Amino acid sequence: MSIFGVSESSSLEKRTDYERLIKEFGLKPLDKSLLVKLQPLHYLFELGMIFAHRGFDDYLRRYEIGQKVSIVSGRGPSNFMHLGHLVVFEVVKWLQSRLNASVYIPLSDDEKYVFGKVKRLEDAHFFALDNALDILSLGFIKGKTFLYISSKMPEVYEISVKLSRYLTYNTVKATFGLDDSTNPGTIFYACVQAAHILMPTLLHGEVVVVPIAIDQDPYMRLTRDVAERVGIAKPAAIYSKYIKGLTGEPMSASKPETCIFTSDDPETVRKKVWMAFTGGRPTLKEQKELGGEPEKCVVFEWLKVFVFKHIKDIGLHEEKCRSGALVCGECKKMLSDALVKRLEEIKRNKMRILDNIDDYFLHPIEEELIENVRRRLHIQESQA
Amino acid sequence: MSIFGVSESSSLEKRTDYERLIKEFGLKPLDKSLLVKLQPLHYLFELGMIFAHRGFDDYLRRYEIGQKVSIVSGRGPSNFMHLGHLVVFEVVKWLQSRLNASVYIPLSDDEKYVFGKVKRLEDAHFFALDNALDILSLGFIKGKTFLYISSKMPEVYEISVKLSRYLTYNTVKATFGLDDSTNPGTIFYACVQAAHILMPTLLHGEVVVVPIAIDQDPYMRLTRDVAERVGIAKPAAIYSKYIKGLTGEPMSASKPETCIFTSDDPETVRKKVWMAFTGGRPTLKEQKELGGEPEKCVVFEWLKVFVFKHIKDIGLHEEKCRSGALVCGECKKMLSDALVKRLEEIKRNKMRILDNIDDYFLHPIEEELIENVRRRLHIQESQA
Repeated sequence: MSIFGVSESSSLEKRTDYERLIKEFGLKPLDKSLLVKLQPLHYLFELGMIFAHRGFDDYLRRYEIGQKVSIVSGRGPSNFMHLGHLVVFEVVKWLQSRLNASVYIPLSDDEKYVFGKVKRLEDAHFFALDNALDILSLGFIKGKTFLYISSKMPEVYEISVKLSRYLTYNTVKATFGLDDSTNPGTIFYACVQAAHILMPTLLHGEVVVVPIAIDQDPYMRLTRDVAERVGIAKPAAIYSKYIKGLTGEPMSASKPETCIFTSDDPETVRKKVWMAFTGGRPTLKEQKELGGEPEKCVVFEWLKVFVFKHIKDIGLHEEKCRSGALVCGECKKMLSDALVKRLEEIKRNKMRILDNIDDYFLHPIEEELIENVRRRLHIQESQA
Repeated sequence: MSIFGVSESSSLEKRTDYERLIKEFGLKPLDKSLLVKLQPLHYLFELGMIFAHRGFDDYLRRYEIGQKVSIVSGRGPSNFMHLGHLVVFEVVKWLQSRLNASVYIPLSDDEKYVFGKVKRLEDAHFFALDNALDILSLGFIKGKTFLYISSKMPEVYEISVKLSRYLTYNTVKATFGLDDSTNPGTIFYACVQAAHILMPTLLHGEVVVVPIAIDQDPYMRLTRDVAERVGIAKPAAIYSKYIKGLTGEPMSASKPETCIFTSDDPETVRKKVWMAFTGGRPTLKEQKELGGEPEKCVVFEWLKVFVFKHIKDIGLHEEKCRSGALVCGECKKMLSDALVKRLEEIKRNKMRILDNIDDYFLHPIEEELIENVRRRLHIQESQA
């Protein structure tokens, strides 16, 4: 449902024919003429993880003539975050430093509540703050990075009300796939989501880009239509591919074995990686003789996305695998070592950022909420 | 549409068979056993202007055993207020002092905007503050009277979101008479209205009563159902009759000749009253011989509601009319003199209250908005 972040249960998850998707959705491929403007590229762009766009050419043109630009990238806080969720924020962070852009990160507690993903709105508040720390642990620019919990941010409702007159129930119903027995909150959330995306333009005259998963494009189109009717710059979007889950299925927070949560302890990480789907041969003998099949291997995909930071290193590793010089256990150890180290770093950063959380939030955070999250982090630390 | 205040265009306006309405809607008449608890009564109760209720017996019972009580009475700010709008607030004021109750007055800018009654949300903000001054000019208790502009009050959206899960689009559609081409703001407004009414109970554990016009009962029932599902005390309602407009039609802000706006200058007041529908005879001779027909006379109805404060005075005046001792011109002069004096008093009070408006609002009011309203009051003053 969320326009932001990694899709949890998309019908597109298994369709990796991205060229066809580009055609079907009427997107533009992220081709060389655009990428050359962003040199030196982030390795996730080089990997082709970000592969298509809508209006990003216009966005960069406006940036070049000196218009203020920002990036909006939200998170629906109904659970702990997994590493797949964080990939898109790596891209956001890089783009922020590349363009000196403002970054807005709405945490849509309202969305998760009205769609029944949390029992009480307060549960979403806990995850909102915990998730915020995960995101901020990547290292965003202080004073240019603005987080807020949707229902706690006074401007959100006012802007949503203003935008509501540019939408109809019929359109929202079709786009979000609702039926008439749905609650009014889900219907209104279409306006709230548009408000999240258009707020930087409406309040600060900034042009916006939203990095999203490809299946969220219908909501993006809806918001671009609203912007056009309101008479402001349409938000751009850049689209990311899916990362396979450890089991070979799509990553999903509701299937813990497919993903690594930032809250996982080292033993859990090693166990999950050990069970991962690989491109290894049935026997060691065959592996030595025929070499591995990295194109089938989730561990290799994860090494590419989460561990290697340079295309060159990826190529060398792939060759070694194909040559039979590597056995799967080695790759798994390499991946789990790197992930455990990464999670330790995230946890350390979260603690530090929690002490200065007001530097990043656009509204005050209640002391009680901070204490709840701090307590939970201490428990995680003692398990590590 | 609004649950609050005087109905503008109700299908019930011409149906004054209030006994039938009580039956049809399943209300309870405001009978002696209840009224005796409120002695000494406000003359609007004695007049029978407030004639029915839902749950007001339970409300008074809770009050008697020491529970905190409050009154919620909103206003949809899309125009200047007329004197008909203020009648309900007279009742609120009296009930406040009688029960030492908190009074909450939501000004629903969002409602007026999503239903297209104002062009821009900001237009509703102007009327919200101007209307607030009209209401406060009646003299509410400082520290127990809380006004807010709906979209400016942070708690409103959060509570509306929480309540949204207790409603469905189907129910809202049926109750509000919406169709699928409506905007999502109108649908969500059902939750917002429920939030206005239930906020004192949810946030402060106060039992609520809402004084409303009879045709707004379906929205009240909706909100009582929500309260029951949430598991809090159901809000009570007391129902008022309609006051005829000067022309004999229902009062309506969109037909200025039917009502007296608080912004009308003395000449306009006198002109409107002069054109009013009376119970007078065709000729002076007949009037002297047959006497007037006060039961048909709008001027008499207005004298009852707006001028006389005691049932006894009304009786004496009625007798005089029937006896032929009064001519319509005298009553019209009496009414317009009283109204002009009343409007002067309201204007004077508005100026004074504007300087201390923060004493009554639950959120800050922008200086620019205060200045706009002040400017407009000065213009009115110079016309007076």
